[in-house]
Amino acid sequence: MREIYLDNCATTRVDRDAAELAAHLMQSDYGNPSSLHKKGIEAEARLTEARRKLAFALGCAPEAVYFTSGGTESNNLAILGAVSANKRAGNTIITTAWEHSAVLKPMRELEGRGFTLKIAKPEPDGHIDAQKLAALTDDDTVLISCMMVNSELGSIADIERLVRLVKQRNGKTIVHCDAVQGFGKLAFSAEKLGVDLLSVSGHKTYAPKGVGALYMKKTARVSPLLFGGGQERQIRPGTEALPLIAAFGLAAETARKNLDTNFARITALFEHFVKKAAVTDNLCMNSPPDSTPYICNVSLLGFRSETVLHYLAAKGIYVSSGSACGKGKPSHMLEAVGFPRERMESALRISFSKHNTTDEVDALFEALSRAQKEIKS
Amino acid sequence: MREIYLDNCATTRVDRDAAELAAHLMQSDYGNPSSLHKKGIEAEARLTEARRKLAFALGCAPEAVYFTSGGTESNNLAILGAVSANKRAGNTIITTAWEHSAVLKPMRELEGRGFTLKIAKPEPDGHIDAQKLAALTDDDTVLISCMMVNSELGSIADIERLVRLVKQRNGKTIVHCDAVQGFGKLAFSAEKLGVDLLSVSGHKTYAPKGVGALYMKKTARVSPLLFGGGQERQIRPGTEALPLIAAFGLAAETARKNLDTNFARITALFEHFVKKAAVTDNLCMNSPPDSTPYICNVSLLGFRSETVLHYLAAKGIYVSSGSACGKGKPSHMLEAVGFPRERMESALRISFSKHNTTDEVDALFEALSRAQKEIKS
Repeated sequence: MREIYLDNCATTRVDRDAAELAAHLMQSDYGNPSSLHKKGIEAEARLTEARRKLAFALGCAPEAVYFTSGGTESNNLAILGAVSANKRAGNTIITTAWEHSAVLKPMRELEGRGFTLKIAKPEPDGHIDAQKLAALTDDDTVLISCMMVNSELGSIADIERLVRLVKQRNGKTIVHCDAVQGFGKLAFSAEKLGVDLLSVSGHKTYAPKGVGALYMKKTARVSPLLFGGGQERQIRPGTEALPLIAAFGLAAETARKNLDTNFARITALFEHFVKKAAVTDNLCMNSPPDSTPYICNVSLLGFRSETVLHYLAAKGIYVSSGSACGKGKPSHMLEAVGFPRERMESALRISFSKHNTTDEVDALFEALSRAQKEIKS
Repeated sequence: MREIYLDNCATTRVDRDAAELAAHLMQSDYGNPSSLHKKGIEAEARLTEARRKLAFALGCAPEAVYFTSGGTESNNLAILGAVSANKRAGNTIITTAWEHSAVLKPMRELEGRGFTLKIAKPEPDGHIDAQKLAALTDDDTVLISCMMVNSELGSIADIERLVRLVKQRNGKTIVHCDAVQGFGKLAFSAEKLGVDLLSVSGHKTYAPKGVGALYMKKTARVSPLLFGGGQERQIRPGTEALPLIAAFGLAAETARKNLDTNFARITALFEHFVKKAAVTDNLCMNSPPDSTPYICNVSLLGFRSETVLHYLAAKGIYVSSGSACGKGKPSHMLEAVGFPRERMESALRISFSKHNTTDEVDALFEALSRAQKEIKS
C-alpha cells in the first residue's frame, strides 16, 4: 500500500545522506571526541564541523550552540537551567497556555518549587499577542518562554517583537523560545531575534531522533542539569552522540540552504490544501490564515478525530489528532484558544515535509470525503 | 595504515546489524512511538522489543528498563533522582573515590545542596573492600553508589555482597551501581545483584553513542530530572530515540548471547598480554590480577603517558592514558589507589573488544619496545 505521511510535526524521515553519515560514524569513524589519539581528534573535528553547520542554520556563532539529546532536554535545560543560574534576577516566570509539555511541565515544576507562574492565553483568533504577553513582565520576572510556531495550529509568534517589548520592561528578564517547529522551516536568525535561549530538535527536520541543540546568547547563563565529564563546555556532560550530532549538522545545513525553495513549495501545497478544504463538506480550518504552511489544523465536524485518523491510517494516510506527545488526550493547545468542544474533538493535524506532493493532498481529501459516507454508514 | 583500536573502554565500533537497523529506522520505519497511526504503533512495538532485549541482557523484567541518552544521564537520574524521590530516607550519601565523574560530580552537587558525602578509598591493592564500604552506611544513609568495573584499572567490585551488607545495616538505603564497563562483558543479573538502580551505556558495548538505560527495581522510586511528555513512564520524557534504542537492544542481546564465548576469548587475550608484559622492560601492570580481562592498565616507567600514546597513535595503535572523559588530566582513579606519581604519569590503558586479536597485542608490544628506544633517542 502506498504510504502518505502527513504527520511531519510528530517526526520526519531522516535525510538519506544524514542517515548514511550516522551509520558511517557508527561503524568506521567511531572515535570518542574526548580521546587523545587520532580517532578521537577526528571525532572532535566532526563535532566542530557539526556545530558550525548548526550555527549556520541557527544564524549564530558556533560557540553559541550546545548539543543535547533533543527538544525536551533543550527546553528543560533552558528553563530549569536559566532559573537556577539567575537566582537573584527574580521569582516570577511567564509562559503561554499552548506551549509544548516540555515547556509547560518544567514551568509547573518551578511553580511547585516556589516560583510565581503566569500563563498567558492565546487570543481567540489563534495568535499570541506579543504586547499582552510582554506586559506580564515586571521587575520580578526572571524568565519568559514563548514558542515560535504552535505545534498543532501552526500559528507563528512574533518573537523578535516579544524580545524587544520584554527587554524594555525588564532588561534582565531571560527570553527563551521553543523553536522546535520553526527550525529549518521558517527563516530566522537566533541572533537577530535577540532571544537569550532557543531550543531546536533534530527529528522534526530530517535529522535523527535523540539529538537537539540549545542556542545560548553569549551573555546568557545556564546551570547544567546533568553532571559528569566536561563535554559541551560543562553545560551538557556525557560522550557526545557524534553519529546523531553529525547527521543533525548535515540535515540542518541542508534545510537552511533549501529553506526558501521548500517554503515556496510548501506554501503552494498549503494553498492547494486550503482550496480543497473550502469545498469539502463539514470541514473547517482551525489554523489561522497566516500560520506556517507546514501545518494545517482542520476539524471534520461530526466525526471524532481518532475515528477519522484510524480510517485514514487504514488507507495508508498518516495524520495526527494533535501533538504526538499527547497520545490522543484532548488538546490543551486548542483548549487554550477556546475552540468549542465539537471542533476540538474532531480536530486533525496535517503537517507537511519537503517530500509531500499535491497528489498526496488530493488523496487525503478524497479519503476525507469517502470517510464521511463510510464512517456514517 | 592498519588500525589497531585498543581503546574500547572509551567507545566501541557499533555492530554492523545494529548500525544498519538504526539507519533503517531513520529512513523507512521512522514513526514516532507516540503517534496513534500505524507508523506510530509499529514504532512502539519496536520500542517494546528493544526493552525486552535490554531486559534479557540485564537480567530483569522489561518493566524495569528505562531508556536514557547515555551512561551519564543514567547515573545522574539514579543519583539525583533517587535522592529527590526519597527525601525522608536520610541526608547522607556514600560513594567511592574512583567512580566515573558522572557519579562523583552529581554526588558533589548533592553535597553542595546540603547532603553529607562520604567517599570511600579503594584499597592499595586496587580493590573496593565491600565490607568497609558498607560499614559507612548508617540510619541517615539514603544512597550508596559503587561502580561494578573500574574504567581505568578493570577492578571488579563484589556488588552482590555490597548490597547484602548495606541492606543489613539499613534496609532503606538505595544501592546504585554504575555498571557501564561491566555490561555486556561480565555475566550478571541486575535482579540477582539486588541493587535498586543500575546504569548502563550503549556505546561501550557495540551500540551507538547517545543511548543508555537505567535499571530500576520494582520498589525503587526516582524523580525525573526532565519534564515533558509522558515517555518512559514519566521518568524520562522526550521522543524516544528509536533508531538508537533499537540498535542498543540488538547489540545488547548479541553481547549477552555471546558473553561467555567473548569472555573466554578476551581472557586468553588478557593472559597473552600479561605474559608479554612480564618480559617487557620497564613495564609494570597496574590492574590487579583478578581484574576484568577487558582492561589492562600498565605503566611504561620513565615514559610519559601522552608521549607514548601519541607515538603509538602515529603507528595506528590507539590506547588511552586514562578515562576518555578526563581528556588527559591526571587520573583521579589511580590517585585514589595511591599509585606513586611516576606510575600514574606513565600509565596506559589498553581496553579490548571482541574484535581484537593476539596479533594486535603482539604489534602493541613490538611498538612499546621500539618506543623505548626511539623516544629516548
